[in-house]
Amino acid sequence: MPTFDLYGFWRTSATYRVRVALAMKGLQAHEHIVNLDAGEQHTPAYRALNPLGGIPTLVEPGHAPLTQSLAILEFLEETQPEPPLLPPDRHGRARVRGLAGMLAADTHPLITPRVKKYLMTQGRFDDADWRAWQTHWFGTGLRAVEQRLASESDTGLYCHGDTPTLSDICLASVMAVMQVFQIEVEDIPTIERIVARCQTLEPFARAHPRRQSGAPAA
Amino acid sequence: MPTFDLYGFWRTSATYRVRVALAMKGLQAHEHIVNLDAGEQHTPAYRALNPLGGIPTLVEPGHAPLTQSLAILEFLEETQPEPPLLPPDRHGRARVRGLAGMLAADTHPLITPRVKKYLMTQGRFDDADWRAWQTHWFGTGLRAVEQRLASESDTGLYCHGDTPTLSDICLASVMAVMQVFQIEVEDIPTIERIVARCQTLEPFARAHPRRQSGAPAA
Repeated sequence: MPTFDLYGFWRTSATYRVRVALAMKGLQAHEHIVNLDAGEQHTPAYRALNPLGGIPTLVEPGHAPLTQSLAILEFLEETQPEPPLLPPDRHGRARVRGLAGMLAADTHPLITPRVKKYLMTQGRFDDADWRAWQTHWFGTGLRAVEQRLASESDTGLYCHGDTPTLSDICLASVMAVMQVFQIEVEDIPTIERIVARCQTLEPFARAHPRRQSGAPAA
Repeated sequence: MPTFDLYGFWRTSATYRVRVALAMKGLQAHEHIVNLDAGEQHTPAYRALNPLGGIPTLVEPGHAPLTQSLAILEFLEETQPEPPLLPPDRHGRARVRGLAGMLAADTHPLITPRVKKYLMTQGRFDDADWRAWQTHWFGTGLRAVEQRLASESDTGLYCHGDTPTLSDICLASVMAVMQVFQIEVEDIPTIERIVARCQTLEPFARAHPRRQSGAPAA
């Protein structure tokens, strides 16, 4: 198996997701820091890898760069099927992908640096407005996920059954970023139980934002 | 193959995507209108199907409701593999899913009714601010996709090679919704060429927002 190159940043949930999946699959990657605080996502060199300037980007030597964390997770699942991060049945797979989408597609894109930049300039938001926005969308997404996890019989020790899946990776990624921004959402006991269990697993623990190169002292 | 139930609304790009995929796969579905303009996504009956209140929701009789358009597209691909909407190789699949994510995850969630509601109330946006926001994010997403499509050798008659994939469905869905909102993005010739070709295919043509039950007269 090749050694991948992962371009990411300590704080971002999308990079966290890929880091966890690589570790769970036992795949090796060199990490390269794209310092979002210094605007390195806008450099021509990085834009050549990823025109949208988002992170992360994953490169397998000899192949075109891969972008979009959910697409990368599916790629890693196909590259190294063990241990599986999707259940074997098509309905279970749809549930896991649906939960992942509620977090990675419906929630996270609203809280990205480019959205903050727009709202703080054209949108005339101040810091309190931005914090209210973050809190609103994290809360909206997590309460909806909580409602599903708490009521659906497929929920187990993890989001779907008793082994971690793509849903757990997306859930833990959102919770990790909320912790970085010191935002709390109340009344999500099922999520808290599942994420606490994820954090006992080495791939999740090692991927935590605060343990990455480039992270400020806590 | 069962007859599915699809809960959607004429105008939304996520419903459009599922409608196209069902038609391409030759799968049957009863469509049920969830009138977003009347707030029907907030009714307890609909929330029981889809706690986040998003649309669409797809139901296969005897199974739990499925949500999140990308998860549903993957489900339909697994349910009825022919004709394939993903390429056979893992790098090609990652490219198609990455392009789909740039549209369905990075672009579309910023332009949804719930975001509009927040910005028009707490965000103190007026109609012109909202239109500028829509134009900005449609433009940002489509210019990034255009840059990739125009420069990458895997682009063919469609986004990836010479048959339609999930990327084309997501691309056409975003363009269809822009048309509904009368928003134009310039300098995207590759996208325009590909979407024009999609529209010659019956599943795309039949799925157009203006041809759906509940759509106002043009």
